[in-house]
Amino acid sequence: MNVVLLSIGNEILAGDTVNTNASWISKRLTELGCSIKIQMTVPDEQNSIQDALKSILKNNPDLVITTGGLGPTEDDITREVIFDFVGTGYEFDEDYWKNLKQRFERFGFDIPESNRSQALIPMQGKVIPNSVGSARGLQFQIDSTTLITLPGVPAEMKSMMHESIIPFIRAQGVSTPNMKLLRTTGIPESTLIEKIEPATAKEHHCTIGYYPSYYGVDIRITSDAQAALSRLSSEISDILGHSIYAVDKIDIAEVAVGLAVDKGATFAAAESCTGGLIGHRITEVSGSSKAFLGGVVAYSNDVKQKGLGVQSSTLEKYGAVSAETAEEMAENVLSEFQADYGLSVTGIAGPTGGTEDKPVGIVYIGLAKKGTVKVKKLQFGEHRSRNKLRTSQAALNMLRLALIHE
Amino acid sequence: MNVVLLSIGNEILAGDTVNTNASWISKRLTELGCSIKIQMTVPDEQNSIQDALKSILKNNPDLVITTGGLGPTEDDITREVIFDFVGTGYEFDEDYWKNLKQRFERFGFDIPESNRSQALIPMQGKVIPNSVGSARGLQFQIDSTTLITLPGVPAEMKSMMHESIIPFIRAQGVSTPNMKLLRTTGIPESTLIEKIEPATAKEHHCTIGYYPSYYGVDIRITSDAQAALSRLSSEISDILGHSIYAVDKIDIAEVAVGLAVDKGATFAAAESCTGGLIGHRITEVSGSSKAFLGGVVAYSNDVKQKGLGVQSSTLEKYGAVSAETAEEMAENVLSEFQADYGLSVTGIAGPTGGTEDKPVGIVYIGLAKKGTVKVKKLQFGEHRSRNKLRTSQAALNMLRLALIHE
Repeated sequence: MNVVLLSIGNEILAGDTVNTNASWISKRLTELGCSIKIQMTVPDEQNSIQDALKSILKNNPDLVITTGGLGPTEDDITREVIFDFVGTGYEFDEDYWKNLKQRFERFGFDIPESNRSQALIPMQGKVIPNSVGSARGLQFQIDSTTLITLPGVPAEMKSMMHESIIPFIRAQGVSTPNMKLLRTTGIPESTLIEKIEPATAKEHHCTIGYYPSYYGVDIRITSDAQAALSRLSSEISDILGHSIYAVDKIDIAEVAVGLAVDKGATFAAAESCTGGLIGHRITEVSGSSKAFLGGVVAYSNDVKQKGLGVQSSTLEKYGAVSAETAEEMAENVLSEFQADYGLSVTGIAGPTGGTEDKPVGIVYIGLAKKGTVKVKKLQFGEHRSRNKLRTSQAALNMLRLALIHE
Repeated sequence: MNVVLLSIGNEILAGDTVNTNASWISKRLTELGCSIKIQMTVPDEQNSIQDALKSILKNNPDLVITTGGLGPTEDDITREVIFDFVGTGYEFDEDYWKNLKQRFERFGFDIPESNRSQALIPMQGKVIPNSVGSARGLQFQIDSTTLITLPGVPAEMKSMMHESIIPFIRAQGVSTPNMKLLRTTGIPESTLIEKIEPATAKEHHCTIGYYPSYYGVDIRITSDAQAALSRLSSEISDILGHSIYAVDKIDIAEVAVGLAVDKGATFAAAESCTGGLIGHRITEVSGSSKAFLGGVVAYSNDVKQKGLGVQSSTLEKYGAVSAETAEEMAENVLSEFQADYGLSVTGIAGPTGGTEDKPVGIVYIGLAKKGTVKVKKLQFGEHRSRNKLRTSQAALNMLRLALIHE
């Protein structure tokens, strides 16, 4: 099924809003077996919207989904523009208007008159219900193309996709493609590609895509033949081993938490340069409290010493950013929280604060476990946010690898 | 200056990559006074790219910027497709190839033959240098339209925008629009609109946009007349007062850190349900170590008690999620870290773990300052990540307001 997405909204074109709707819908529909041919964004202007629809329909896509412009303000013109484009009359839905009024009253508001536009329904076509907001969607058939119009508010769009659009697409009988995702971390893209060459150099009847990010490199393998896909992905998996942390789009924090829960292990974190990011990522995982006890954010030297009991002699002799400090932080957070694992990071996130010996981007990660402690030294770049992300990823990976061998 | 952006990449259409390049470029160019007419994404396919360019050029935009498809792999066909579209021959740039080879050698790699395509240069048009990567850009003039082709790697695209494209646009003499951004938090959109009606109901010759997010509501005011813009924005500012936390696109954490540094105040945070997110947001701010001492992530009850000295009687009588626990957490983190302010949050992030008394989304935020402590109770929804975000925003806002009145 060929699909075109048309986002309507000045805020996207002004760069104020990142178009996560387009990527969200694309991802869901690709998984269903659809092929997204074009994503397009135009302003809240009659001519722009109609010109875009005209040019899109020329290629006869099976499905066009528009998002945005169904709100109650005067910017929101999509509904009327689509009625005009399709050439349908419309009427006022008194029942829905009453229903809307009541919803507003329940929250203690008088409904603004401007919301009346949301009660307009076309004489042709269908109305798509919206169970979480006031803007209902629209569905029309134009020759071989189905045109669906949804609101741009992500929560409303998503709920309508799940409740109406995805079931509609499934009913058309699209076939899900054979796809395998391998998420790796800790190996640069070029090295990774070289490493798996024994598997990829021969004829394998698959398409391989590499998607590097600060979290690592995702490998996406697709094929028309399930057997070929299984063969190639298992060969790659054999080569990469534990460098693959997930075979689904989940975060490494979720993998680490899952392993800890499975093994009945608890852990705590002492964070310096990541400032709480490791704890934040872990606690994004529902149920993480079963394994994650908490941590200390030791941002100042004083805190490293008092809050975490790092010896002042260690700080003086080796500095706050050193393997020795990382070791003590990991050991002390382990004992303070009575955890099975103590994770620590100390480094210079940047963009300033580096020295010749210890340049910006230097990081030490410590992992303590009853009586043993390991430290890993890493060197990242000059970008503060990225250094924090990459450090948290490397630390969670160190914890994950230790838990695998638990 | 009318601009069209064309992103080229299967990973965007498959929803694997959010198109942050489009929003980043749009934002920068809008600030420069350009008007982004269309954002479009097409796959790495010759016909799709050329069809898109044809339909875009029909409307004679002043500038078209493409991103993506300039890498060394066989997917990356943009360079050759553009040469073909423009109708230019090309040659192999031996000097650049030598230069690329040396760069690879410096990192200890042999350069793959596939990188040769990156040394191709057109007979017509210009090459745009890339100081952070190997994919150089291209620039052509097609009638009244300038066509610029950039790589899709965000760091490379951004560096080339700053070094070449933005200076080029500035040299065309576009006029920056009159715009004012007011970032608010703590007031729901509908209430906000009602509140500022005394300023907005009369003729004001401005355009007002409201952009709600989990951080609050941004108000963007634009006008052709600078005087009208100043008048309206100062009237709105008078009404909203300290509900406006910034007049630029900066995070509330940066505002709070700035205030603390200005006033010479230090602070520490005790986080339960946010799990480290507050510390993470604060430490995204370069220089935050001047004010932020650190914190405790008290995820388990045991940690609240041992690590933070919350009395077991408090936990037993009122529970871990209570005003009383929030109070003690704030007071204890203040004294433990010897900070001027102690911030605390405890709540139920969800999606499970709620009770009738304490439903999912309930949050207590505490703020202690030498001998005084305030607690605020909030009720959010059922979505874990959003609850964490909104809690961190409310907590940082509470700290900010206290610092304003310091």
